[in-house]
Amino acid sequence: MQIGMIGLGRMGSNMVQRLMKNGHSAVVFDARAQSIEDLHKLGATGSSSLADFVSKLEKPRAVWMMLPAAIVDNELTKLIPLLEDGDIIIDGGNSHYHDDIRRAAMLKQKGIHYVDVGTSGGVFGLQRGYCLMIGGETATVQHLSPIFATLAPGADGTVEGTPNRTEVAAAGSTAEQGFLHCGPHGAGHFVKMVHNGIEYGLMAAYAEGFNVLRHANIGLQTAEIDAETTPLSHPEYYQYNLDVAEISEVWRRGSVITSWLLDLTADALHADPALSQYAGRVSDSGEGRWTISAAIDEGVPTPVLSAALYGRFSSRGNDDFANQVLSAMRAGFGGHHEKPPVK
Amino acid sequence: MQIGMIGLGRMGSNMVQRLMKNGHSAVVFDARAQSIEDLHKLGATGSSSLADFVSKLEKPRAVWMMLPAAIVDNELTKLIPLLEDGDIIIDGGNSHYHDDIRRAAMLKQKGIHYVDVGTSGGVFGLQRGYCLMIGGETATVQHLSPIFATLAPGADGTVEGTPNRTEVAAAGSTAEQGFLHCGPHGAGHFVKMVHNGIEYGLMAAYAEGFNVLRHANIGLQTAEIDAETTPLSHPEYYQYNLDVAEISEVWRRGSVITSWLLDLTADALHADPALSQYAGRVSDSGEGRWTISAAIDEGVPTPVLSAALYGRFSSRGNDDFANQVLSAMRAGFGGHHEKPPVK
Amino acid sequence: MQIGMIGLGRMGSNMVQRLMKNGHSAVVFDARAQSIEDLHKLGATGSSSLADFVSKLEKPRAVWMMLPAAIVDNELTKLIPLLEDGDIIIDGGNSHYHDDIRRAAMLKQKGIHYVDVGTSGGVFGLQRGYCLMIGGETATVQHLSPIFATLAPGADGTVEGTPNRTEVAAAGSTAEQGFLHCGPHGAGHFVKMVHNGIEYGLMAAYAEGFNVLRHANIGLQTAEIDAETTPLSHPEYYQYNLDVAEISEVWRRGSVITSWLLDLTADALHADPALSQYAGRVSDSGEGRWTISAAIDEGVPTPVLSAALYGRFSSRGNDDFANQVLSAMRAGFGGHHEKPPVK
Amino acid sequence: MQIGMIGLGRMGSNMVQRLMKNGHSAVVFDARAQSIEDLHKLGATGSSSLADFVSKLEKPRAVWMMLPAAIVDNELTKLIPLLEDGDIIIDGGNSHYHDDIRRAAMLKQKGIHYVDVGTSGGVFGLQRGYCLMIGGETATVQHLSPIFATLAPGADGTVEGTPNRTEVAAAGSTAEQGFLHCGPHGAGHFVKMVHNGIEYGLMAAYAEGFNVLRHANIGLQTAEIDAETTPLSHPEYYQYNLDVAEISEVWRRGSVITSWLLDLTADALHADPALSQYAGRVSDSGEGRWTISAAIDEGVPTPVLSAALYGRFSSRGNDDFANQVLSAMRAGFGGHHEKPPVK
Repeated sequence: MQIGMIGLGRMGSNMVQRLMKNGHSAVVFDARAQSIEDLHKLGATGSSSLADFVSKLEKPRAVWMMLPAAIVDNELTKLIPLLEDGDIIIDGGNSHYHDDIRRAAMLKQKGIHYVDVGTSGGVFGLQRGYCLMIGGETATVQHLSPIFATLAPGADGTVEGTPNRTEVAAAGSTAEQGFLHCGPHGAGHFVKMVHNGIEYGLMAAYAEGFNVLRHANIGLQTAEIDAETTPLSHPEYYQYNLDVAEISEVWRRGSVITSWLLDLTADALHADPALSQYAGRVSDSGEGRWTISAAIDEGVPTPVLSAALYGRFSSRGNDDFANQVLSAMRAGFGGHHEKPPVK
Repeated sequence: MQIGMIGLGRMGSNMVQRLMKNGHSAVVFDARAQSIEDLHKLGATGSSSLADFVSKLEKPRAVWMMLPAAIVDNELTKLIPLLEDGDIIIDGGNSHYHDDIRRAAMLKQKGIHYVDVGTSGGVFGLQRGYCLMIGGETATVQHLSPIFATLAPGADGTVEGTPNRTEVAAAGSTAEQGFLHCGPHGAGHFVKMVHNGIEYGLMAAYAEGFNVLRHANIGLQTAEIDAETTPLSHPEYYQYNLDVAEISEVWRRGSVITSWLLDLTADALHADPALSQYAGRVSDSGEGRWTISAAIDEGVPTPVLSAALYGRFSSRGNDDFANQVLSAMRAGFGGHHEKPPVK
Repeated sequence: MQIGMIGLGRMGSNMVQRLMKNGHSAVVFDARAQSIEDLHKLGATGSSSLADFVSKLEKPRAVWMMLPAAIVDNELTKLIPLLEDGDIIIDGGNSHYHDDIRRAAMLKQKGIHYVDVGTSGGVFGLQRGYCLMIGGETATVQHLSPIFATLAPGADGTVEGTPNRTEVAAAGSTAEQGFLHCGPHGAGHFVKMVHNGIEYGLMAAYAEGFNVLRHANIGLQTAEIDAETTPLSHPEYYQYNLDVAEISEVWRRGSVITSWLLDLTADALHADPALSQYAGRVSDSGEGRWTISAAIDEGVPTPVLSAALYGRFSSRGNDDFANQVLSAMRAGFGGHHEKPPVK
Repeated sequence: MQIGMIGLGRMGSNMVQRLMKNGHSAVVFDARAQSIEDLHKLGATGSSSLADFVSKLEKPRAVWMMLPAAIVDNELTKLIPLLEDGDIIIDGGNSHYHDDIRRAAMLKQKGIHYVDVGTSGGVFGLQRGYCLMIGGETATVQHLSPIFATLAPGADGTVEGTPNRTEVAAAGSTAEQGFLHCGPHGAGHFVKMVHNGIEYGLMAAYAEGFNVLRHANIGLQTAEIDAETTPLSHPEYYQYNLDVAEISEVWRRGSVITSWLLDLTADALHADPALSQYAGRVSDSGEGRWTISAAIDEGVPTPVLSAALYGRFSSRGNDDFANQVLSAMRAGFGGHHEKPPVK
């Protein structure tokens, strides 16, 4: 079927390509003309303006937006007047699910259908397919099934089945194909939000572990002796110069902690075990934060997911004032002076 | 080659079977005669006592101990007098690596070699193979290579290679086969310890995420209004009855958080989405604790791994007195009374 | 001056009494007639309805609401039509500061002034005075100064001055008297919110510490030996039966951790060192949650304050499903069974 | 009575002065001659060597060591041969209680008594007195009571009594005077260790809260819009430029979170609300770490105390490699590039 795609960045462009390779047609639009041109060469129908874009779509139109969360509402304001009763807007980006609920209610008054799709898979999605978590009305979601089925990996056998997943349990569910209608408006982005919250936790667990491995040689270093520095009681226990790259590789083989994130880590550590191209300033792009806020609303404890998020905040220096307060207190009660960094 | 196995529980028994299926021979011993008999039927040489066990081993003897960490030293005390210069003891269980360092030094004086092997793979290892993290002298580790190569999964192609892992980088390393000589005595169990620390963090990340999903319907419940209870400001955002089993399934397909632990979770949730057979009292078996202690010695922050460990402590009620202190304080400054559980 | 008080619970009633003792007059209203009658006996003017209450107030009316956050908006809906241009509403309860901003804007259209007052001090406030954190327009806040000055402790010398607080720095500030105009609408409750967030962290720090003290005797207990239980390597280090009550007392004397919360804890532990009247189900009343949400919006890491909040969630069993997921995973990969509680 | 003091740094020197002001005599020794000379001028008996020091002490000698934990054992090795049966060694520094247990057993064989004293109070102790937590044999501790009673603040009425602390409960206890015999060898440093663990948690709770206050103006800043940056949904909620110094002052007056640490914080914030003299590299001096290790041995969850400790580790850059791993993973799955710091 035909899809209109607004937003031809890394994700949007790859999705259009995956769709076209599998027999769908696409009308595309982006603020950057080059992005449109690139996809045009691959077979997509380009458009010179939002109005032109809309005019090229068959009714009921299906418009997929793949944009940074911060500009979706702005784009919607321009798009909505161009659409008609029965058209469909899909937000496949990383919107907050609160926005989905608000937009769906607003669009309903105009007869426009809204579907929120949480999309996971990153730059590998073009080949592997995307995991799609979908929220919206059942009829609209079913109408778009051919698109979802193509974007998703499909149950092609590369992933083993879940033994306890009987046919009865799975009846009518598309989860094995890699897309799932999770519930009403917002449910798709809600599930994607939690997915990313988990992702932060998983990443931090590996990162902390590799950091412990990397410092297993501290007993080989000379330590200072003063009242400000904790003596290392047993240097004999920290004499290991471990090969973190090879350890990441062996863990990929039969261990309990195998995962795709570990595969990626192994790859990065093999390229450079010191990861010296990275300064360690880690961004967070919204879902991790929203997961914690939702957990708190629910009264559900999420200490691991929060710790992972806070680590990112601190990596960007957002703990600086708190640390200054600590140093000020220490100076206050103990006359302690800060120690300069060891060169 | 021949291996002697002491400790024929879940792990030890499966390892013997995997070895025998691939052409090795085994002499086995356990406190439970039935366990010996069961393996005898499968082709192992049984033994009636520790002395009998030792007498049946070819020199230099290779004795693999697969025992709870708490009884290893006791068993060693009985075993050592029966061994000779040049024999090898392998501790494949979950010993603290401090103990490895101590034991290796002690055994060296008697000319006995010691190898510590962290073993991951659980009940699936019999089929999948075990991920082996090895510490000890190079010559001894190499002598045992045939055993390790059989127990490990092997580079059979079911796990894709790591793109950046060039032949040069990997020269001489067996990591792709699923076993790795990590360093001197204790290095194997050190790496396994951190592996398990990571495992705790990964598990908790998923568990917290699924808990957030499960409570996405709190807006459908009636809330109390009193000064002790936080009102849910926006019940309209928590109206989702999510199918956690199907969500775990879709996440297995192309998402960033695919992993073996997720596969297992999906299986459990398909068997019973409410997991009602579990009370939620979660054991911890040592390595998670030791990882934190090592991290603290190193001065490496591990907030995620710690939070995961503490969650297990709390699941067993070990936070009770702390919570009573909190309730006592609240009564003290605010006259707050504890609210009974909602039925 | 005259104040009207709606909400005569623990806090509202005590505040009226403190005001009247110091020469102010009060008109009071509550849903419970008995509460009105009790204060009437102490000199307050009672009222039979909200309309009656409003009619007895001098213009410009100053109406102080001391109600559970969940019912403030409902009460406001009834109150507003009875008020006039120039009247003042003070919310002294625990409202979310978002609500302050919304209400102030709404009331401004009717010419009604709104002041948000975060109030700390609990049941001791009647004698000690209340710490007041105030948000609103400067003129309105100054108009109410006599009320604030009476409710606050006052700079009576029982609290020592801050050495670095020069007269210049403090010019025009009432902080030393125990009340502070923190900023525009919502600033009072924002500061109170963070105050409570800190309070949660402080309380948890003490609670965890006392829990560590209480279990300093675990080496005296007999431990099980199995693969599910971590052996205690050094029971000789945990042989202390500590007197937590006496320790709390000595810490009150010259230590770095002296505080009012410690005073309260010492009192509770002296009444019963086992705190057996408390089950350890700890409520949270909103501000702790909102502090974390604000911190996350700001990108400020608050691992300590979050951990304190999550501990309360877990104390009420909200981590149950997460723990069941953990047990299910452990059963999945290791065949581990849950261990029942030790009797 | 007479005390011998080894270690005349900030703490040791002040303690000698406090003792001498109250009628005790002191023999002093330090590696720095100037420190000895300074106290000599104030009335102490100096000594030219450890042997000279010991020779000037009356039997049974009472030698108080006030040294960095890392050099105590070294000093003991030199001291012990100079002492006799019946002499007493007091370790008033921050030794690990494990070391106390070991040393006491070793000294017992020589007939020398050992007492461990955890000392809190910092640079203010000279005037305020020190809170003393004591471990050792009852007879020895009682013998030293006159020293402890002088060093401690004493029950002089500046600290109010604990209402529930009845005479019966308190019989024979010196806790109200500010010193307490907590238990056998090591109990003093165990309790001091937990005291410091709590101290870390309290400090971090305040520090995090002040950091949230300080960033309450982020809505006034211009934000970037890209897929790497979370948009601030509601800038209108973060428009507060708060005066953290005045807030710290008002919290000292009648709030629930009054404490000595808050007093110190208020003082530092009044000197400079930006705390610009501090870089925010926060040391940790041992007890915080040991508290966590003990908690883990006990199976007691200490999420707040751990988070406080880890914040210090991260403030010194010890999380760098973990953060690099996170950035490498993000580059791997999403092609995300690190964003440089905002100037």
